[in-house]
Parts: sequence; C-alpha cells; structure tokens
Amino acid sequence: MPEFLTLVPPPAALEMLLRHLSASKPAAELIHSVNALGRVTAGDICAPHPLPMFSRSAVDGYAIHAGDTFGASESLPTYLQVVGEIPMGAEPSFALEPEKAAIIHTGGMLPKGADSVVMLENTQTVSVDHRDCRACGASEIVNEASARTMVNIEVFKAVAEGENVIREGEDVSVGQVVIPAGTRLRPAEIGGLMALGITELPVTVRPKVGILSSGDEVVPPDHEPHPGQVRDVNSYSLSALVTQTGGEPVRYGIIPDQAGALKASAARALLETDLVMITAGSSASVRDLTAEVIRLLGAPGLLVHGVNVRPGKPTILAVCDGKAVIGLPGNPVSALVVAGMFVVPVIERLLGLKATRPRPLVIARLTINVPSQAGREDWIAVKLIPYDDSLGKALTKVRGDVERSKGQVAYAAEPVFAKSNLIFSLAAADGLVRVPTEATGLSIGEVVEVFLL
Amino acid sequence: MPEFLTLVPPPAALEMLLRHLSASKPAAELIHSVNALGRVTAGDICAPHPLPMFSRSAVDGYAIHAGDTFGASESLPTYLQVVGEIPMGAEPSFALEPEKAAIIHTGGMLPKGADSVVMLENTQTVSVDHRDCRACGASEIVNEASARTMVNIEVFKAVAEGENVIREGEDVSVGQVVIPAGTRLRPAEIGGLMALGITELPVTVRPKVGILSSGDEVVPPDHEPHPGQVRDVNSYSLSALVTQTGGEPVRYGIIPDQAGALKASAARALLETDLVMITAGSSASVRDLTAEVIRLLGAPGLLVHGVNVRPGKPTILAVCDGKAVIGLPGNPVSALVVAGMFVVPVIERLLGLKATRPRPLVIARLTINVPSQAGREDWIAVKLIPYDDSLGKALTKVRGDVERSKGQVAYAAEPVFAKSNLIFSLAAADGLVRVPTEATGLSIGEVVEVFLL
Repeated sequence: MPEFLTLVPPPAALEMLLRHLSASKPAAELIHSVNALGRVTAGDICAPHPLPMFSRSAVDGYAIHAGDTFGASESLPTYLQVVGEIPMGAEPSFALEPEKAAIIHTGGMLPKGADSVVMLENTQTVSVDHRDCRACGASEIVNEASARTMVNIEVFKAVAEGENVIREGEDVSVGQVVIPAGTRLRPAEIGGLMALGITELPVTVRPKVGILSSGDEVVPPDHEPHPGQVRDVNSYSLSALVTQTGGEPVRYGIIPDQAGALKASAARALLETDLVMITAGSSASVRDLTAEVIRLLGAPGLLVHGVNVRPGKPTILAVCDGKAVIGLPGNPVSALVVAGMFVVPVIERLLGLKATRPRPLVIARLTINVPSQAGREDWIAVKLIPYDDSLGKALTKVRGDVERSKGQVAYAAEPVFAKSNLIFSLAAADGLVRVPTEATGLSIGEVVEVFLL
Repeated sequence: MPEFLTLVPPPAALEMLLRHLSASKPAAELIHSVNALGRVTAGDICAPHPLPMFSRSAVDGYAIHAGDTFGASESLPTYLQVVGEIPMGAEPSFALEPEKAAIIHTGGMLPKGADSVVMLENTQTVSVDHRDCRACGASEIVNEASARTMVNIEVFKAVAEGENVIREGEDVSVGQVVIPAGTRLRPAEIGGLMALGITELPVTVRPKVGILSSGDEVVPPDHEPHPGQVRDVNSYSLSALVTQTGGEPVRYGIIPDQAGALKASAARALLETDLVMITAGSSASVRDLTAEVIRLLGAPGLLVHGVNVRPGKPTILAVCDGKAVIGLPGNPVSALVVAGMFVVPVIERLLGLKATRPRPLVIARLTINVPSQAGREDWIAVKLIPYDDSLGKALTKVRGDVERSKGQVAYAAEPVFAKSNLIFSLAAADGLVRVPTEATGLSIGEVVEVFLL
C-alpha cells in the first residue's frame, strides 16, 4: 500500500518527458484561412508577391514631385497646378509632370512621375476662374466640380522624396517568410494571409489526446451516484483543457481499478491517440496500479514517478513508443494543475508550436501570508480583487510598508483555501500563484505573478 | 473633403457607447455542458445537492474516533484494532465502534461512528497471529490477506475531530450559487458542472456581429487585384477577433463607396445582427460617407466621431435602435486595435459577461525611447524578446540605471515600427503597449505592460 517516490523537480521532470518524445514532424492538413484562427502553421508561409503591390499614399493630399517644394514655407509657398484626381482602386491614367499635382486619397496609387505626397493640411487651394486663365491646360481635371474652374494649390511645407508614400514591397517583399512554421495564428495573421491572397494553408493536425478515468468509486456525470460514489469530473475538465490548448480530446470512459482492464484501455488509447492521460483513482494502491500498467505499455516507459510539487506529487510521466503517457492525480484540482504543467507543453510540442508566446499573467499583491515547505514548488489558487484604496488601506493597517505600486499593481490576490482542493475552490479562483521551490512561503503585501486559469 | 472631428478620450467614448446600448437581457439557449467551454452562463447555476455528497477521507489511512488518540505520541502510541477495510465506491457495511479502526483510502466514505482519519504515515501495523488471539473479533476483516492474521495498529499522533475528513457539503452546500450568471466557463467550471450532474445548462446565445467592408479599391482575397486595388483584410481579421471574443461574425462583403449601397447593406446588417462594424475606405471623404450613412440608420445615432487615440482617430461610435454601429478606420492595424478597444467590450456586454476577468499582460522593459504626443493615447505594437543577460547589458550600456527587476521582468519589449501600420508589422508583434494620454512618451528601460495580441 505505501508508495516510495523519488520526487523530481517540475522543470527537470518536464525536460525529461519532452526529451524522450518522438521527434517526428507533426502531420499537416490544408484548411481554409478563414477557419485558421488558433491553428498552427505546418510550414513557413512566404509572400507570393510584395505588399503593398504598388506605391500608395499614406495620407489624403496631393501626389507631387518632392523637388518642386524645396524651400516652401508658410511665408513663401510653392504653387502647383492640379491636373487631376486619382480614383481609388484604379491605375492613374496619366503620368505626373514637374510643377503639377494630383489629388490623391489615402491608399491611392501613386502616378508615374510622382515621388511623394503633400498632406492636405499643408496646402491651400487657389481657385482660378477659367475666364481668367484660358491657357492653363486644365483639361486633365476629371472632377466635375473642379472642371468648371482651374485649380492651383499653395504648398506651405517642403516635402522629402518618398514622404507620405508606402513604397511597393515596404511591408513585405516577394518570397519573404511572413509567418514562420510553428506559429499559432491570431487575427492579425489571418488578415495578413488574406492580404496576400492565401486563402488556404497547411496547418498541423490537432493532436488526439486520450483521456482515461480510473476509479471504482467514479460514475458518469449523468448517473445518480450511490453513497460512496462520485461523478467523473476529470474526463471533462481535462477535455476542456485539451480543447483550449488546441488538441482533440478522446474520452475512453471510466475504467475499473483492475490491471487488466486498465492496461487494455490504455493500450488501445496509445494506439489511437497521440498522448494518453490516465487520472488515477485517488488511493495510493490504485496509483501504483497506474504506474504498473504504464510500465507494460512500451519503451522507454516510466520516466518520473513523483514530482516535487503541490498539488501534484503522485504524478507519473512516461513515454511509450514515442508517445507521452501521463498519470495524473485523481483529485480534480491536482489533475487540472498538473495537466497545465505537463500535458499542455506536450500538446504544444505535438502541434509543432515553435514560437511559444510569453504566458500572460496579472501582477497582484497577496492579501495574507502563505506558508510553504522549502524544497517543494507550491501552486496556490487565488481570487483577484480590483485593488482600490479601501483595500490598500486595509493592507496598510496590517503591514506598514504595503503601498500600491505606481500604476502597476491593480489587483489584490486572495488565496482560495480549501482543505483538499475541491473543484469549486478552483472555479472560484482566477488564477494560480507559484511559490518557488526555495521559498518558505510568501508574505502579505508581496507582489506576485498570477497565471490566469 | 476635410473632416472636423471633436476628439473624445477612449474611456469616455466607450462609456458613452455602452450607456446607450439596449439594456435587454441576452437571449439564452440550452447546451450540453461538455460543449460549454468559453460560453457564458445565462443564469445562476445552483447546486442540486451538496458536494461532497458524503463525508470522505482526504488521505490514505484509518477511519477512527478522534477521542481514542488523545495524548498519543511516538513514545506512547495508542493501540486500535482494525475491523475492516472500506471499499471504494460503496457505503461501509458497518458502523465503527470506539477503539476500532477501519482501513480507508483517499475519497473513501467515512463509516458511521468515525469522526476523523489518521494518516497511514502516523501509524504502524502490529500483526497478531490468529492462533494467539482467538477472542479478538476479527471477523469484520474483508481483506483476504489480512483475514489470515489479526491486525492492530499503533497510532503515533493525536488526531482532532474532523481531521483529514472532507465533510458532506464542505465544497458546496445544497442550493448554493456555484457559478453566477455572466461567467465565462473555463475547464474548472466544466468539471464543477459534471461533479453536480449538471450535463446541460443555459448559456447566452453568441451575438451575431455584422461586418461590412467599404472601399472602391477593395477586392475579395481570392481575387487577383488590378493595379490600384487591394484585397479585403479587415473582414477576415475582424471576423477572427469576433470569434475569439465569443461572437459569431456575419460578413456582408465589400460595399461600394456610395451612400445608397452602404446604407442598404448597413440597414440589412442592423436588422439581422446584434452589432454592426463598418470598416471605411481609407480616405477622409469615404469616412464622412460612413458617418452620414450611420446618422440615417436609427436613433440616437452618431455618438462619437473621432477618438483621441492613435491608431484609431477617425473611429465612429453610434447606437441605432439599441444596437451598436461602429465605424472603424480602413487601415488593417488601426481597425484591429480599435476593434479591441470598442467592439470587444460590446460583444462582452451582449454575451451578458458580468465577471470580466483581469486582462492578462506581460511586464517588459522598453528597448528604445518611444515619443508620443501629450493629450493623445497611443498604442505601440511591440515584439517581446526573452530578457537575457546580454540584452540586459546592452540596455545598461545605453542607460546606466537599467537593471533587471528581481524576478519580474523577463522580457524586453521592442517596438515594431512601420510607417503606416502595415498588417505584417502587427503579425510580427506579440502585443500592444499603451502610452497614456498625459505622457509625452516612454523611455528606454521603462517597465511597461504589454497586452498580448
């Protein structure tokens, strides 16, 4: 009945697990870009053409020759003759000659000859009646209203070559890797793909994650438990975590606490999925059963039996035939915390995720002292409370030096204590705070990083 | 052609928008809990029964009467007679008499009479051969191995009443609100629902968000643009943002820059969806067209025309017949940043989201000075670079007082500058940094909050 574990620190345990995984490339599938949010690129995405595809104006104003404005100022403006308006979405029908200007809108295509745009704000129109100016050559004016009169502009500011112009290829040059392999696609990347006309792309296949619940006391959620029985929580909370991470959960149901049954189901899951999770019954003997079964599944087998973390000590990490098999504690909170620690990184590896973005967090101040055992990493569930002045005062009363940091600590973190990590204690929490291995606890008023659940 | 905007600060603009929205309750639909990840509860979820449903052991050990162990110590242990083992998932078949103990596993149901559990670690078994002890009453022992011999235990530690026991209802009492209305469901809540046997629940209907792209220069992504034309980026990047936030995007395609066409499409979208976004063509005249069309859609109509933020100045906020109509800049980066600022909060309101969790962020140090105009809020796209010592030294070289904060600043934030907010400049960024209205810029080495994209 008793178990003897050699506890491995969490980072070393994860490193050991990842090192033994198969190094084979994740499978890819072609999907429509419109459905690609959250998926991971299976290869580098290269630009089939430059972006923008033509030199465009960045402002509303006049396309001009920059040289014409040298020395222009409020007191000594340059006069230019307006020869037309560039319609949106079309190539200008004319080339711009020196000392001429053409009305251009933001995003409009620069006419040949023009090398810059002067902003509307730095000009003033000077209308000249046609009767006064018959030789002005206003025939190019396409705008009906302005066709009746001849238009000149005054330019009050010198413009540099290329000013207010987005050059062809300035965003992206042809052939450039615009989205590297292993990138999880966000709205910005979806937009970028569309700009390049890439309406389909290869992404990595969602890894299948097998989930087995063991425990003679466990019944499905739609059953009315008899005295002594509890409903299956882990199959569903872990499924949700897998979905959230980008995997596809496959539930193998509730397996009786018998080596034969557990081994048969685990072997089937190992064959059919890319990663297997077994949440053990909660007693030590059943956890030993899980370890025993995992040992038989394939090489190299069991790597870690016991992690130096709370919650999560009885975690089992194994690799069988290149695939990870992870034995999680039966306690729902422990299972979820440990899955975040070990299952999520494996799914990310299986997704081919290369550029892991920083894990977002919230900075907060602890409302009470949190004791912890040195030599063990602890994860504490906390509720975040917007940090207003009344709370600040309350904390100050307890400890003199608690001061709200300048603009950065907007929340107080209140530990959600529950005797044995009950599932609704986690539902009441906003996130988790890590107490490092070497610490003997955290102090009231201390600034901590809260990883959101 | 020129526009005259009264610029409203972003928080005031948002407040004005939200205040004019219809106050009606979001529609609800019944779904399976297994599919409820990310959905928002339409009403309070109450516990149909307590959790746990019976008093359970929190450890592996022996169910006992606490009173029997008073004064027990290493040197003076208490002796108790083991009368049986409580099987997992079943009600104990016996009541525990004083001075007796029953083997119990983590999660096992406490027998009647027992009031606490002593941990296995604080006991030692003392086997007594049956031949030596015929009158001991060992008949209750169910475990085959132990049936052969009579088992007593020594208890080395006094146990308090209730120790190592999770009492019936300790997590949740019957009728308690376990998940309030307006909560976005995470893996922990999905698990909690299952624990209570709640396999279906009412969630708010995903709000439909109409998306219109206007612009004579815009063509669909699967078209080969002619010179002067660009592909529609905004319909797709904004669709992805809507999906990410929990809404359902409805794309109305590309609308020509004509008041009649734009008004017809916008009116249809307003009828068919819960929120309408129009990304204007990029020129000032077309933006004015959008404002003009929005004015005709319904009361109270246009609320804000121009927000004091960069990017995003030409933003239009309106409420027509209780629904938000938002005119976004045509520039893809501006459109996405502004949608995050105004569209996301409206979707959250339509979802009935009450408990908005803190927006996660990453703390980082700026690698360069960022100038900004006082009196305007700026949002700067940045790339996050893991902050190693070499970077620390490089920064220190530039500015003497740049020191890595104790354990908290793990990244450097490098602004991704691009002349005119090109879409791939955003794809290259990890997040956005806000330069407050009153600031004239941010300094190299300054610690900033990065909101992940």
